[in-house]
Amino acid sequence: MPPHFAPPLQTSGWLNSNKPLDVPDFRGRVLIIEAFQMLCPGCVSHGLPQAQRIAEAFPNEQVAVIGLHTVFEHHEAQGTRAALAAFAHEYRLNFPIGIDQQDGRLPVTMTAYNMKGTPTLVVIDRSGFLRFQRFGHVDDLILGSIIGTLLAEPLPTQEPEEERQTDR
Amino acid sequence: MPPHFAPPLQTSGWLNSNKPLDVPDFRGRVLIIEAFQMLCPGCVSHGLPQAQRIAEAFPNEQVAVIGLHTVFEHHEAQGTRAALAAFAHEYRLNFPIGIDQQDGRLPVTMTAYNMKGTPTLVVIDRSGFLRFQRFGHVDDLILGSIIGTLLAEPLPTQEPEEERQTDR
Amino acid sequence: MPPHFAPPLQTSGWLNSNKPLDVPDFRGRVLIIEAFQMLCPGCVSHGLPQAQRIAEAFPNEQVAVIGLHTVFEHHEAQGTRAALAAFAHEYRLNFPIGIDQQDGRLPVTMTAYNMKGTPTLVVIDRSGFLRFQRFGHVDDLILGSIIGTLLAEPLPTQEPEEERQTDR
Amino acid sequence: MPPHFAPPLQTSGWLNSNKPLDVPDFRGRVLIIEAFQMLCPGCVSHGLPQAQRIAEAFPNEQVAVIGLHTVFEHHEAQGTRAALAAFAHEYRLNFPIGIDQQDGRLPVTMTAYNMKGTPTLVVIDRSGFLRFQRFGHVDDLILGSIIGTLLAEPLPTQEPEEERQTDR
Repeated sequence: MPPHFAPPLQTSGWLNSNKPLDVPDFRGRVLIIEAFQMLCPGCVSHGLPQAQRIAEAFPNEQVAVIGLHTVFEHHEAQGTRAALAAFAHEYRLNFPIGIDQQDGRLPVTMTAYNMKGTPTLVVIDRSGFLRFQRFGHVDDLILGSIIGTLLAEPLPTQEPEEERQTDR
Repeated sequence: MPPHFAPPLQTSGWLNSNKPLDVPDFRGRVLIIEAFQMLCPGCVSHGLPQAQRIAEAFPNEQVAVIGLHTVFEHHEAQGTRAALAAFAHEYRLNFPIGIDQQDGRLPVTMTAYNMKGTPTLVVIDRSGFLRFQRFGHVDDLILGSIIGTLLAEPLPTQEPEEERQTDR
Repeated sequence: MPPHFAPPLQTSGWLNSNKPLDVPDFRGRVLIIEAFQMLCPGCVSHGLPQAQRIAEAFPNEQVAVIGLHTVFEHHEAQGTRAALAAFAHEYRLNFPIGIDQQDGRLPVTMTAYNMKGTPTLVVIDRSGFLRFQRFGHVDDLILGSIIGTLLAEPLPTQEPEEERQTDR
Repeated sequence: MPPHFAPPLQTSGWLNSNKPLDVPDFRGRVLIIEAFQMLCPGCVSHGLPQAQRIAEAFPNEQVAVIGLHTVFEHHEAQGTRAALAAFAHEYRLNFPIGIDQQDGRLPVTMTAYNMKGTPTLVVIDRSGFLRFQRFGHVDDLILGSIIGTLLAEPLPTQEPEEERQTDR
């Protein structure tokens, strides 16, 4: 299967960003999306700390990190913006966090990416192609090599606006 | 300062227990109280795992472990029983957890014990005396030695009901 | 089986001590013996760091820690005092370390204690009785409680010189 | 400073290899050299485990890992092949390990690479150029990205034999 354009981020709100963000906003940079739930132990112990390490290890103009709060259980405990804001404050999450749009059993973006649970790590290249996605633990060495390979690729040269439009 | 009776647990509800619990219920056993908040990173990474290790390391008839949810911030995110229940479910906390009674700026039991924050670990001996209390990280070797010393003390022989009454 | 007097330490040399040491020298204190080999990975990663934690956690006048180098393999690499001294220097082992006497297939003290390998942790009470011995990993909480229990016991009151003599 | 050819490995012996190895033997693969001493705590706790993780994370035909025993202190304890063999056996080091040639105060290869101590990690690209060298701790994410970038480069096409000759 050839790489395909990463689906758009369909969100109902953002933390740490004063405007909604989407994949094309990160064109020219490698984009890491950490899909998590605030009450998911694996997200708290492994996924989110890894996302923070990525944000610290690479220059922000080369590698961008965002969170995606994909609540698919315990909606009463995790489902409010206030709860997520308290969580992000306590765990000192400084990267932008989108709130995945609720519409049915699973959140919309989670469904579009066909994620199997949380944490899920997504890597999107500088042209907007989805290049890696993994549910569960990802080894730092492997993840680093994926990022390194994508950083070695040539920068996108032409505007992809029209292609993106047909993709939505 | 000589040891004094541990203040009573004033709670508005319990998880993992079908009745309210208080210090005298644990007479004859060393009682460990782990005071925590579900969105407190130090509680999640250190305090609660240590409480779970204690519950596994010692026979339940000798050492009892309970949690105390002392919410003093982010009430909108941590303040409901549903949020705590989701948290306890996800982190597989099996010991009884009391919800500290809200009444003013700080929870009632937290105030009575003069706790400075979360996590706070409290050790109560088999006669109900408060013997150790620490805010923050407690070393396993030191904590083990405190428990071992209390387990070496003679069991309480007479009923302390009246003394407890005057203490309340 | 009732506790029995700890066998004497039969050594061919000591580091970090200007005289040979033996169990009676620690009378009045709980004595921890960490039996190890310098090229034993479990000793380096778990046993010796735990011994160092014990030495730091408890007052030296209450709990004493010593090492015992029980070489039973790789004699050509571990068997010299120079090799052990280099190891102790690099790993900053400051407690006294006895070199178990070589005489046959297994070292003499290792045989007398019936140790099954390295690391082995031995706990001797303030009267010289062997109270705990474990090959492999020992949990800090459990070990702490053993030490705490022994510290709660009354100090030995009479000189045990004659009993020790018959024991040798 | 442009990348330069990695200096040759000048060794007095090898473990886990039935013939001496040198940089050109790894042409076409990214080569990781972990320079260590067997009694160096940072090598045992961080450097060598990282080298083992690299060997497991990447296909051997793409990324090769070797050790280099650069003894510059405690020669009496670390300086024999028997001591190194016992260490490699106990720590289950399966990759080839060269013994850096002793000649003067510092080993020869260590000097040629201008290493400041142990552990030192060296990364050589598929054409034999030295691309990264670091004394001390190297982050897995960063190291992974370096390897990923080198793996994204085109394979060397022509034989570099003559250039190598003049380099020696």
